[in-house]
Amino acid sequence: MIDFLAHCRSIVGDAFVLDSSADMAPFLTDWRGRFTGKALAVLRPASVDQVAALVRACAQWRVALVPQGGNTGLVLGSVPDAGGGAVVLSLARLNQIRLVDPVNRTMTVDAGCILQQVQEAAAAAGCMFPLSLAAEGSCTIGGNLSTNAGGTAVLRYGNTRELCLGLEVVTPQGEIWSGLRGLRKDNTGYDLRDLFIGAEGTLGVITGAVLKLYPQPKASITALAALPSPAHALQLLTLMQDHCGSSLTGFELMSRYCLELVAQQFPSLPKPFAAPHPQYVLLELSSSESEQHAVGLLEQAIGAALERDVISDAVVATSVAQSAGLWQLREHIPLAQAKAGKNIKHDISLPVSSIADFIAATGPLLDAAFPGCQLVCFGHLGDGNLHYNVAPPDGISNEDFLLNQDKVNRVVHDSVAGFGGSISAEHGIGALKRDELAHYKSAVELNMMRAIKAALDPLGIMNPGKIL
Amino acid sequence: MIDFLAHCRSIVGDAFVLDSSADMAPFLTDWRGRFTGKALAVLRPASVDQVAALVRACAQWRVALVPQGGNTGLVLGSVPDAGGGAVVLSLARLNQIRLVDPVNRTMTVDAGCILQQVQEAAAAAGCMFPLSLAAEGSCTIGGNLSTNAGGTAVLRYGNTRELCLGLEVVTPQGEIWSGLRGLRKDNTGYDLRDLFIGAEGTLGVITGAVLKLYPQPKASITALAALPSPAHALQLLTLMQDHCGSSLTGFELMSRYCLELVAQQFPSLPKPFAAPHPQYVLLELSSSESEQHAVGLLEQAIGAALERDVISDAVVATSVAQSAGLWQLREHIPLAQAKAGKNIKHDISLPVSSIADFIAATGPLLDAAFPGCQLVCFGHLGDGNLHYNVAPPDGISNEDFLLNQDKVNRVVHDSVAGFGGSISAEHGIGALKRDELAHYKSAVELNMMRAIKAALDPLGIMNPGKIL
Repeated sequence: MIDFLAHCRSIVGDAFVLDSSADMAPFLTDWRGRFTGKALAVLRPASVDQVAALVRACAQWRVALVPQGGNTGLVLGSVPDAGGGAVVLSLARLNQIRLVDPVNRTMTVDAGCILQQVQEAAAAAGCMFPLSLAAEGSCTIGGNLSTNAGGTAVLRYGNTRELCLGLEVVTPQGEIWSGLRGLRKDNTGYDLRDLFIGAEGTLGVITGAVLKLYPQPKASITALAALPSPAHALQLLTLMQDHCGSSLTGFELMSRYCLELVAQQFPSLPKPFAAPHPQYVLLELSSSESEQHAVGLLEQAIGAALERDVISDAVVATSVAQSAGLWQLREHIPLAQAKAGKNIKHDISLPVSSIADFIAATGPLLDAAFPGCQLVCFGHLGDGNLHYNVAPPDGISNEDFLLNQDKVNRVVHDSVAGFGGSISAEHGIGALKRDELAHYKSAVELNMMRAIKAALDPLGIMNPGKIL
Repeated sequence: MIDFLAHCRSIVGDAFVLDSSADMAPFLTDWRGRFTGKALAVLRPASVDQVAALVRACAQWRVALVPQGGNTGLVLGSVPDAGGGAVVLSLARLNQIRLVDPVNRTMTVDAGCILQQVQEAAAAAGCMFPLSLAAEGSCTIGGNLSTNAGGTAVLRYGNTRELCLGLEVVTPQGEIWSGLRGLRKDNTGYDLRDLFIGAEGTLGVITGAVLKLYPQPKASITALAALPSPAHALQLLTLMQDHCGSSLTGFELMSRYCLELVAQQFPSLPKPFAAPHPQYVLLELSSSESEQHAVGLLEQAIGAALERDVISDAVVATSVAQSAGLWQLREHIPLAQAKAGKNIKHDISLPVSSIADFIAATGPLLDAAFPGCQLVCFGHLGDGNLHYNVAPPDGISNEDFLLNQDKVNRVVHDSVAGFGGSISAEHGIGALKRDELAHYKSAVELNMMRAIKAALDPLGIMNPGKIL
């Protein structure tokens, strides 16, 4: 391996092959601090050609490599395992916005660009790149692509896959595939782009991308609706979509318990309603026309929902500050959870039409198995995506409850599978959910995935132990 | 092969294994009547299990199979070659709408459903399936998926790939992959769905799909704008998108020559302007709110375009009949071409921002090589998709001019490649453009495609000779 590292140093320079424990540390532990892997070295190339040369070296010496962006993933996809024989390939130095084309509504970026940097470059050109998620100040677009990240704008604009027109990828053989096409229509062979998107670095290294841009909305307006049940939330979704079409850009479900937790842990945040309600929906409308248009549309839709008893009450934000306050309630749910103690998290999705039935069916199953456990259930209802987290019953310590993690997962994921849902809506599989994937996917599907992996990466050097 | 056909008969019944020339004829000639292939038989299964059993038989006897839907493809993808050793596998009898779920905004359909049948079932549930194209009365959704069909609604709703959430596929081994998920977010491994979509039956047989539905717009309104040049059309596109956002649902470019051809061949159609203009754009706006809203939005945007000299003139349809009349001008261009004589067609796409430069650069190249040739240039400008057709100069017969097809293709496709475009925007590759694909795609990309093909279809029985 001395020869291998010397060769890597000749490619990127001594300063960019890190092999001391101190230098490597930030690259080896995952975002939530649950796992620390080991590595031979951390490689920090500055160009696509350097990435290709490093991958060729890995292929020659049969060294596994773990591509890494901002290392903000939640499923242990971007850190190496405990073996110590792999290298981390950090894309962070590939961080240039290559081109913004406002007429084509595209931008071409390096994989290591921070998501916020991408958003800002789009805005500077009078456009919008809609992908938005909690880690946007430190995650990279390459990581977003490799995990097909979701976030809060999926309802209107889709997942990262739908926001990408072309890719540049270094293959496991160290060749460069220049697929940086900025085309809305292109039917020339197999869709390699969507295969690399979401592959979590197991098929190649994404080094660049052509992203879709959108016109910036002229105005956005937010409201919080109170409802008797999740079934009413589904009625509200249909009503809002029929009234507002693509102007509906946010639809987030939160249970009473979620907002009570936020109020306990963050007492200075707004309390929109005098009395509690079983469920809440945070609504966001955006207009390409004017604030007046957005307000009129929202008031009309809320009026119809009140009239039909779909909602019990509603608060409409009348200022940007009030809008931000309502969104803070939503965004503080995970923070309030973290302050209140540990819990067992699930990132699941379901057919939207099954969500009320899933919630009604799964709570009693958990309560039967773990009497008194608390459900922190919230999420992107418009996308069918719930963050369905289970907290310990009163009087049970976090540590004791976490011993039940596998059993809790089995109850929740069995119920998800029964409703035709997914055990990973937006976080991916990584190393964390690999066994769950093997448990729930059909042999036919797993075999096709394995065949593709073996065909494109016959040496098995690309992020081994992730997904498959 | 007698054993093979006997086995097929035992699976689907004697009546559904066609092997007389007369019975097979409609399945062997392509839509435009340019090529007639040969086949051992045409197999007409009625269920997914029958499809799987037939594919297993093909694998066992090493018989190639050509999946076929409505056989309306334009690139010889759904007809067998001249060898006579393959079977055609018609999906036409799998034609049930399995489920419509208006709350999830999805429908689950058999691959053999006619596109129009799918549209009508969506409408009956108060929703819209937006895919729309000329062959919608006879093409099947399985064919649309296998070719990732485009059409007139791509600007707002995307290609067929963006309209599909899940697939059911019979693999080349004759196994059934049940991937009929109705989920907006699902990050559980490789995107097999998008790999089968657009694969033109070379990786497996699509037997069913979960399709996305949308709310029906409350109103649509159409206008025809007259402009000095394609560059002005690009300015108009940016202006319209900034003003109208996702309400802009159609943006079709037509040159003066196109409308003159239509007026010559179909003199009863409307003539919206008294004097000719160099270019025209057909605009369509849809509103989720009301006709009044759509009209207001369109008038405001057209006013701004006139004020800034982006357009020279405009006609807004004030009735459904007038709207239909304007669309007829667009839809009659290919018909007028066909009546006027043969021409050399190209289905190309470009970055939207390069379209004016492409048109300005390519015309002179063609004129230099083929003096006096006529360009029939029109298409879905909002998607960067041009139908760029070349007609013979006056005094040259169709037959003589068609001898130049390869040379004309080379001039056009070289120019497309130079602008970073695609030689097949929405029709696919089939057998017709296979050599062009090999000419323009990089070795890296072709090798990845071949590796995937060999991994999933190691016997090479799935629609051989198509794409690769």
